[in-house]
Amino acid sequence: MKHLIEKHIKSESIYKGHLLGVRKDTVKTPGGREAVRDVVEHPGAVAIVAITDDQELVFVRQFRQPVGEIVLEIPAGVPKKGEAWLDAAKRELKEETGYRAGKIRKIFQAYTTPGYSNEVLEYYLAEDLVQLKPHPDEDEYVEVDLIDLETCVDMVKNGKINDNKTIIGIMIATMADEVRGNPRLKSGE
Amino acid sequence: MKHLIEKHIKSESIYKGHLLGVRKDTVKTPGGREAVRDVVEHPGAVAIVAITDDQELVFVRQFRQPVGEIVLEIPAGVPKKGEAWLDAAKRELKEETGYRAGKIRKIFQAYTTPGYSNEVLEYYLAEDLVQLKPHPDEDEYVEVDLIDLETCVDMVKNGKINDNKTIIGIMIATMADEVRGNPRLKSGE
Repeated sequence: MKHLIEKHIKSESIYKGHLLGVRKDTVKTPGGREAVRDVVEHPGAVAIVAITDDQELVFVRQFRQPVGEIVLEIPAGVPKKGEAWLDAAKRELKEETGYRAGKIRKIFQAYTTPGYSNEVLEYYLAEDLVQLKPHPDEDEYVEVDLIDLETCVDMVKNGKINDNKTIIGIMIATMADEVRGNPRLKSGE
Repeated sequence: MKHLIEKHIKSESIYKGHLLGVRKDTVKTPGGREAVRDVVEHPGAVAIVAITDDQELVFVRQFRQPVGEIVLEIPAGVPKKGEAWLDAAKRELKEETGYRAGKIRKIFQAYTTPGYSNEVLEYYLAEDLVQLKPHPDEDEYVEVDLIDLETCVDMVKNGKINDNKTIIGIMIATMADEVRGNPRLKSGE
């Protein structure tokens, strides 16, 4: 598939923020023309699909300035410098929701928006949860909510859950539920 | 949930690109402190879940400069100025893949990355496909591929499909397949 590949010519840094950067890349297209691609640089993040023993999913509600509303999301965050991503997943879950995971494993990773950003998101499934006290970052105001899986699926269908990673988290939880042989989410119901 | 809301104080424009913009917002947190939020401005996009009569999903492969690799994705694109989003979905499907949809409808919409961007993505389900000739944009080099639904689900699980909107597209296709009563993707198999 070499005929699809663009050749990098140069990069120009536009902005370096606290977390995000922006650069302008000039490339040569497979057709030989020069083209410009804006790229948002992001360090990557972890998202945690945390399921209680009662088959409820753990959510956080928080105000998101970019979209100007409170969004219901699965817990997520950016690993600290030098921190293993699995440790970041455990830490973010505990800080944001107060839950410690007895069992946690990576499911897969995916790009959030490969057309304009290099952000990769690793999805973790957390089970055997023990409830401790949440301690979110300073400047982070979140509210924890537990919602049973069946309701989550309905909330995706009716648009009450409207965040890409959270929709994928619910898909992961549904798959885990099926693997466990839980009959509630069998297809056709 | 008013106790979660941040109050907007001011916005400073950092960059205006061809498609993306970046601004720096200053807000007052619920705790009364000032905080800065970097915001990527994006006009929004449509993504099309196109299913052939043989229950195959229509994909495009294209080189994505931000992640430096060829990514397998469902067709997607940005509506033109003044264009209805449904029309954009029909147009992008036809331009990128050559398929005209006899039936197309919006399933839901979701934010791609509400933590730092305002991008909203509308998902469309396209059926009764008729194959014409693709005519991608100048500077757009894509290769069309058809993959049966069962294989798609495996490719999500083994990481060969690694794009958030595409994973959600496969979930939508699976739901549509179940609604149709197709037994191949029943849980537990």
